[in-house]
Amino acid sequence: MGLLIVLSGPAGVGKGTVCAALRKRMPELVYSVSATTRQPRQGEIDGVNYFFRTREQFQDMIKRDALLEHAEYVGNYYGTPRDFVDTTLASGRDVILEIDVQGALKVKEKFQEAIFIFLLPPSFDVLKERITGRGTETKDTIERRMNEANRELGLLSHYDYAVVNDEIDAASDRIRSIIIAEHCKGYRVMPTVAHMRTAIEKA
Amino acid sequence: MGLLIVLSGPAGVGKGTVCAALRKRMPELVYSVSATTRQPRQGEIDGVNYFFRTREQFQDMIKRDALLEHAEYVGNYYGTPRDFVDTTLASGRDVILEIDVQGALKVKEKFQEAIFIFLLPPSFDVLKERITGRGTETKDTIERRMNEANRELGLLSHYDYAVVNDEIDAASDRIRSIIIAEHCKGYRVMPTVAHMRTAIEKA
Repeated sequence: MGLLIVLSGPAGVGKGTVCAALRKRMPELVYSVSATTRQPRQGEIDGVNYFFRTREQFQDMIKRDALLEHAEYVGNYYGTPRDFVDTTLASGRDVILEIDVQGALKVKEKFQEAIFIFLLPPSFDVLKERITGRGTETKDTIERRMNEANRELGLLSHYDYAVVNDEIDAASDRIRSIIIAEHCKGYRVMPTVAHMRTAIEKA
Repeated sequence: MGLLIVLSGPAGVGKGTVCAALRKRMPELVYSVSATTRQPRQGEIDGVNYFFRTREQFQDMIKRDALLEHAEYVGNYYGTPRDFVDTTLASGRDVILEIDVQGALKVKEKFQEAIFIFLLPPSFDVLKERITGRGTETKDTIERRMNEANRELGLLSHYDYAVVNDEIDAASDRIRSIIIAEHCKGYRVMPTVAHMRTAIEKA
């Protein structure tokens, strides 16, 4: 049985960049494919980049509880189909889901056994710098984003792990370490050991 | 604050070899120095290879509860001084303690917050091969050792992690991963995040 890894964190913390580095480091990891009602862009393949669905199909998935979470952005639905995750985990492979903090908390309601990793900015100064951006944002926007980041950081207690994104290679190595360590949890290895003890007793 | 890592497992599983590989992989890890009443061998340095103590000094350490565990082998005491572990952890460095299963359980009574890793043979066949050795052991000895291994495998439930020693590099990479992952546990990072939130609120 594979593990579902949920990687989340405040906006601008670098989830996408760290995920890309992790993909190179652990090519065996399967990335969760989202469902969406938006139109495919050129080159996008159904089932690879997204599962492209009509509004009716998507609403039917919501009704059937076939999504681990979903949200609506600028008139389009986005969500995580439970079926793709379940099938991949059953095949023994780990799945990673990169998602915002709200989405991660929804996944937690339906999939408690997932491993929740919170990606952190290395310091207040770096967080501020990323939120302030190129200096083109209004004072109000910056204040709103800082409040949002503060609120999201307060949700760390819902997560199993926190990884500081001080350096992309170090951060992706930490995430890889968490995945390997989780597979070594004593209770996961218990059936193998019980099997070995039976073999000793029969010998 | 550093972490105390306790690496244990049945006799002959390869704890020493894996520890040597880990030492190369993580030179920053501090190895616990045991106290003993045996005579120093040529080249052995007090405080580096062992803390060499008289029988009276050792018994005094036992009385003062200054040892995390101790045992007597062929007339000599061996034990793990708590002070060396505490001082190193307080300096922010991780300590690793390689010890047999009995010793590990004693350490657990006095140091619950340590990380307990059980090193496993890759299969029953490999375990049997290692126990049977070069075929010079009597049937009784082999049976006794197999029973002992069975009993020790049954103690896995007291451990946090189990690492299969199928290949030295892979096993030492798994132990490194466990150490890194433990440092990423959400509750350990909580004070840093609380600090960051305070900075946001003051900004």
